[in-house]
Amino acid sequence: MLQIYLFNYTMNLLFLRKEDNLKYKSYKKSDDYSYVFGAFPVIELLENSPEIIREIIISEKYNEIDELVGKLETKGIKYSISDKSIRRIADKGNIYLIAVFDKKRGRIEDGNHIVLHEPSDMGNLGTIIRTMLGFGFRDLAIVGNSCDHFNPKVIRASMGAFFKINIEYFEDIDDYLNKFKDREIYSFILSSDNQKKLVDIKSCGRYSLIFGNEGSGLPTKFESIGDSVLIPQSEDVDSLNLTIAAAVAMFWFKENVEI
Amino acid sequence: MLQIYLFNYTMNLLFLRKEDNLKYKSYKKSDDYSYVFGAFPVIELLENSPEIIREIIISEKYNEIDELVGKLETKGIKYSISDKSIRRIADKGNIYLIAVFDKKRGRIEDGNHIVLHEPSDMGNLGTIIRTMLGFGFRDLAIVGNSCDHFNPKVIRASMGAFFKINIEYFEDIDDYLNKFKDREIYSFILSSDNQKKLVDIKSCGRYSLIFGNEGSGLPTKFESIGDSVLIPQSEDVDSLNLTIAAAVAMFWFKENVEI
Repeated sequence: MLQIYLFNYTMNLLFLRKEDNLKYKSYKKSDDYSYVFGAFPVIELLENSPEIIREIIISEKYNEIDELVGKLETKGIKYSISDKSIRRIADKGNIYLIAVFDKKRGRIEDGNHIVLHEPSDMGNLGTIIRTMLGFGFRDLAIVGNSCDHFNPKVIRASMGAFFKINIEYFEDIDDYLNKFKDREIYSFILSSDNQKKLVDIKSCGRYSLIFGNEGSGLPTKFESIGDSVLIPQSEDVDSLNLTIAAAVAMFWFKENVEI
Repeated sequence: MLQIYLFNYTMNLLFLRKEDNLKYKSYKKSDDYSYVFGAFPVIELLENSPEIIREIIISEKYNEIDELVGKLETKGIKYSISDKSIRRIADKGNIYLIAVFDKKRGRIEDGNHIVLHEPSDMGNLGTIIRTMLGFGFRDLAIVGNSCDHFNPKVIRASMGAFFKINIEYFEDIDDYLNKFKDREIYSFILSSDNQKKLVDIKSCGRYSLIFGNEGSGLPTKFESIGDSVLIPQSEDVDSLNLTIAAAVAMFWFKENVEI
C-alpha cells in the first residue's frame, strides 16, 4: 500500500501537476482576475483571504513545493507547477509564486475615509495603501478617472496591505458624497481663498480626507466641498509628493486630532 | 556685413555646433561628473548653479535651440547639439536636454539636519531631498555604505531640489557626530527599550533626525545615540516606507516642535 501511495505521489509530483496553464497571460485591466507576485505576498494572501484565490502558480524551482502543496490541498485551493506559466504572466524574472485572484468590487464602511480623486500613479497608490494600514485607516475611496487599482503594480507597492483594507470605486465625487453624508470633509488643496492649515485642525467628528491627482491636484470645484486644507510648505517646491502629503495628513488626524 | 553674419550664423547652426561628443557615456559612479536629464531641471540648474555646469547637450529636435544657445553664450557655458550624444548618455528616450555637471564634495551647515544612514534606494533618496526642501530643511548628511547620491536617478526623483540643498557624505556616524556636537539627536528606531513617541517631543534646540536603511533600519548601536524615537504605527505593517517616516518626522519638527 505504502509503495503504491509513494509511486502515485512521486508521479503526481513529477508529471501530473506540472502543467502549463495557457489561460493566464500578462495582466489586462479587462480581465476579471489579477495577480499577486512573489512568495511573501502570496502566502499572506493565502492566510488572509483564501476565498478570493482562483489558483496558485508555483515555479518548478520554488524550494518549499511540498509544504505549500500540502497546505493548498488542505485548503482545497487549485494550483499548478509551471515555470512556463510564470514566465507568460510575470513581467519580471525571479518570481517563484503567483496567486491568481478574483477582482471583486469592494465596499467601504462608514468610518474615517481616505479619498483619492483620479490618482494616476500605481506605485503611489500602493504606497498610500501601505501607509493607510500603517496609520490604521481601513477604507479607501477611489474616485473618477484613475489608474487601475487591481493592477499587480499597485499590489506589489502596497506590500501586502492591499488585501487588508477596503477599497471602493466611485464614478465621480457626487456619487461618493451622496453615499456618505454624515461626516466632515477635508479637501487638500494647494491654493484656495479660504484655507485651514492642517495643524490648526484640532478636533473633528467622523471624517474624509480628499487628495487630488499627482500632477494636477484637486479641481477648483473642491474648494466648495468641505474645508480646504493646506499642508504648509516652502515656496521652493511646486508641491509635496502625493504620497507624502497623504501620509502627513493621515499622521496628523490619527495622532493629533481628537475625534 | 549682415549677409556674412547670417551666413556664419546659419553655418554655425547647421554644422559647427552639431558635434557628437564622444567623451560622455552612460553614467558611472567613478566619473567626476554626473548628468541632469530633461529640459525643466536643466534650466533650473542653469538659473541656480551655472558654475558647476561643464556642458549642456541639446537635442537637434529641441524646439527652443536658438533661445537657449543665446543664453548659454551669454553665460559662457559650453554646449553641443547632438542626438547621438544624448542617446549615448541617456537610458530613456524623449530627452531633449542634458546638463553635465561637476560632482563636488558638499558641505552642510550647522543648522537642523536630516541624517540618512546607509540609504540604498535612489528614488527614495530623491524623494526625501524633495520633501526636505518642501519642509524647509537645507542640510542632508549621508552616512556609511549608501547608494551614490550623484546618480541621475536621485536627481530626477528630487525634481530639481537636489541643487537647492547641501549634501555632505560621512564615512561613518562617528565622523558625523564628531563634526556636529552641540545638538539634540533623534534616532528613529522601530523597537527599543526606551523610546519617545514622536508626538511627545514638544520642544528642542538645534537637532538632527537620523533614519536607517529601507530594509534593515538603524543598527542597535543607535539606541545609545541620542533619543530613540518611534512613529506610532499599526502592527499590520512591518514598518512605514522610509520616505513616509522621514516626511512625517520632518513635518512634526517643523510645524509642531518649538525650537
